[in-house]
Amino acid sequence: MIGGRATGPLSERKATCRAGSNIAFIKYWGVAGDFEDLNIPLNNSISMTLADAHTTTTVAWDDSGCLQEDTVAIDGVELVGPSAERTVAHLDRLRAIAGVSYRARVVSNNNFPMASGIASSASGFAALTVAGAAALGLHLDATRLSAVARQGSGSASRSLFGGFVEWERGWGGESEAKRGESESNSLLDSRSVARQLHSEDHWALRDVIAIVSTGAKRVSSSSGHRLAATSPLNAARTGCVGAWLETVRRAIAERDLCLLGPILELDALAMHGVMMTSTPSLLYWQPGTLEVLQAVRTWREDEGVPVYFTIDAGPNVHLICEAEAAAEVERRVGALPAVGRVLTSGPGTGPELLDGHLI
Amino acid sequence: MIGGRATGPLSERKATCRAGSNIAFIKYWGVAGDFEDLNIPLNNSISMTLADAHTTTTVAWDDSGCLQEDTVAIDGVELVGPSAERTVAHLDRLRAIAGVSYRARVVSNNNFPMASGIASSASGFAALTVAGAAALGLHLDATRLSAVARQGSGSASRSLFGGFVEWERGWGGESEAKRGESESNSLLDSRSVARQLHSEDHWALRDVIAIVSTGAKRVSSSSGHRLAATSPLNAARTGCVGAWLETVRRAIAERDLCLLGPILELDALAMHGVMMTSTPSLLYWQPGTLEVLQAVRTWREDEGVPVYFTIDAGPNVHLICEAEAAAEVERRVGALPAVGRVLTSGPGTGPELLDGHLI
Repeated sequence: MIGGRATGPLSERKATCRAGSNIAFIKYWGVAGDFEDLNIPLNNSISMTLADAHTTTTVAWDDSGCLQEDTVAIDGVELVGPSAERTVAHLDRLRAIAGVSYRARVVSNNNFPMASGIASSASGFAALTVAGAAALGLHLDATRLSAVARQGSGSASRSLFGGFVEWERGWGGESEAKRGESESNSLLDSRSVARQLHSEDHWALRDVIAIVSTGAKRVSSSSGHRLAATSPLNAARTGCVGAWLETVRRAIAERDLCLLGPILELDALAMHGVMMTSTPSLLYWQPGTLEVLQAVRTWREDEGVPVYFTIDAGPNVHLICEAEAAAEVERRVGALPAVGRVLTSGPGTGPELLDGHLI
Repeated sequence: MIGGRATGPLSERKATCRAGSNIAFIKYWGVAGDFEDLNIPLNNSISMTLADAHTTTTVAWDDSGCLQEDTVAIDGVELVGPSAERTVAHLDRLRAIAGVSYRARVVSNNNFPMASGIASSASGFAALTVAGAAALGLHLDATRLSAVARQGSGSASRSLFGGFVEWERGWGGESEAKRGESESNSLLDSRSVARQLHSEDHWALRDVIAIVSTGAKRVSSSSGHRLAATSPLNAARTGCVGAWLETVRRAIAERDLCLLGPILELDALAMHGVMMTSTPSLLYWQPGTLEVLQAVRTWREDEGVPVYFTIDAGPNVHLICEAEAAAEVERRVGALPAVGRVLTSGPGTGPELLDGHLI
């Protein structure tokens, strides 16, 4: 039995959720200093929820009191000590909202490699939030769930919705004192949440993910967010994001890849410029990353292939194109020596509760 | 005979100069809009002149009037049409200063690959300026020669001096009208010139150059300088450079690599952040670039090897270390699969006139 450490029979409240990861077109990078623990971002972000890169999570709360501590297994590996802390902290949020002290068993599986630029924390914390809340019988709408998921992982707030999604910064210049009188108020405060711009049927866009490295990152993106403000380039990027968001919203509304693409690349490169110049410097790129970036530029500029890139906090490259170009892009990117695996996804729905369970 | 197109016997005024390239610790990237033709930079820069990466150039002016046009041969290849224009424009400057109309034959050889991140234009235009002026019998001091060289290639202004050199922006908010009443005034105006901070004997620093690509760049750095202002990150970088210059001056004065190194990497990454986010985007890095960058970080952080990187407008990586670490750094970098060739240089002297000639 995976994830079990119970000493007696368990009485369980159980639910399973599958949630898609998402790929951001305008990136979330950096948290506001006063609100670090709440993951209030420095800027709005816009993403597409992915149909085919998802996490399936079962949360089983033990209301018998037999389970002494939370157990967490991801992709078949039981997490112990510090590696489970982030999940346990999120279970604490759900316990605080429900007013219970049940421990939980969590089993979670990704259908893609973790910690390598595909946002496993986005789909993971979205699925954990939805399954955990459902199993506790909490009646929270998607907006409230987005607020809760955000506190586990900022980008998870966007995975609460399908299709094309904007996460609004929400909180502005409020002082620390004003942010909420009680802990539970803060947990459900819905100022900084995602909303759907368009459903998954709006635009047949594809994210062709070139996986150049499956190794774990040296610095997790959750730590990296705390470093954004140390970069001399950070304020310049966040100062531009307002205009870029407007362009991206319009590009999505009009299904205009030629409008979307250049901003997509610009913001990804600006974000990595910020990362590389933070202290300590975050250099997420690997040789294979550059092989793909250079190839994409050549294909588009010399051969007219309509494809653009974006890169999350990792070495892998997301190639964004329309459905009709996807096969050609997959063929080309799969032939690059540095690319180990190619995973393609269109826009997907929001999280779904499933009938079966992983435990 | 290379470079000859004369129809009759030539009467020649000839000189040969060898000038070192240089590696910038604080980069020159971007020219001031009002002064594009004069190469007035957006910020001061600091470099080390290289002893072992140099250009040797012979300029032979034909005062007989037989030579119909300038001829230019670089590394054994005769340049024709647009590829010779930049050299011809520089010969025009020397002609204007001397008040002559002689055509010239120019033969120039580099001891390193051109257009790949080692500043061949720095050593090339320094050598061209010194040889050309000497052959015309112009009596110009190094500061005046630096001003002239700057107009051929900004970084060439620094190669007029040996050791550790700072190029001062000089011109500030002057209006276009004030910049000089006559053309020859502008040519010799010495406000934006380099000066020596310390001689080549001051600090036994080494530049271990990892050559990962010898291919020519898609966008030359002289075109790239015009694009800096299109990057949303440019003003943030130039706004920080003042503080970085101060640190670098102090680090060189005190021979403190631990002080110099982090700023070296920071400014190189900031400059490439600007390049990547300009319009059009300049992505000079290749897969091998990242292989070297990641390796340097690992060697330093995990194994304590005292080495830092910087990168010019190209894919090659310059590893900066002290003389006693150079052999170890060379051995390590030479073993990386992506590194084709390693070239090491210490600080060198300023340009030297040679007795022999290439033609």
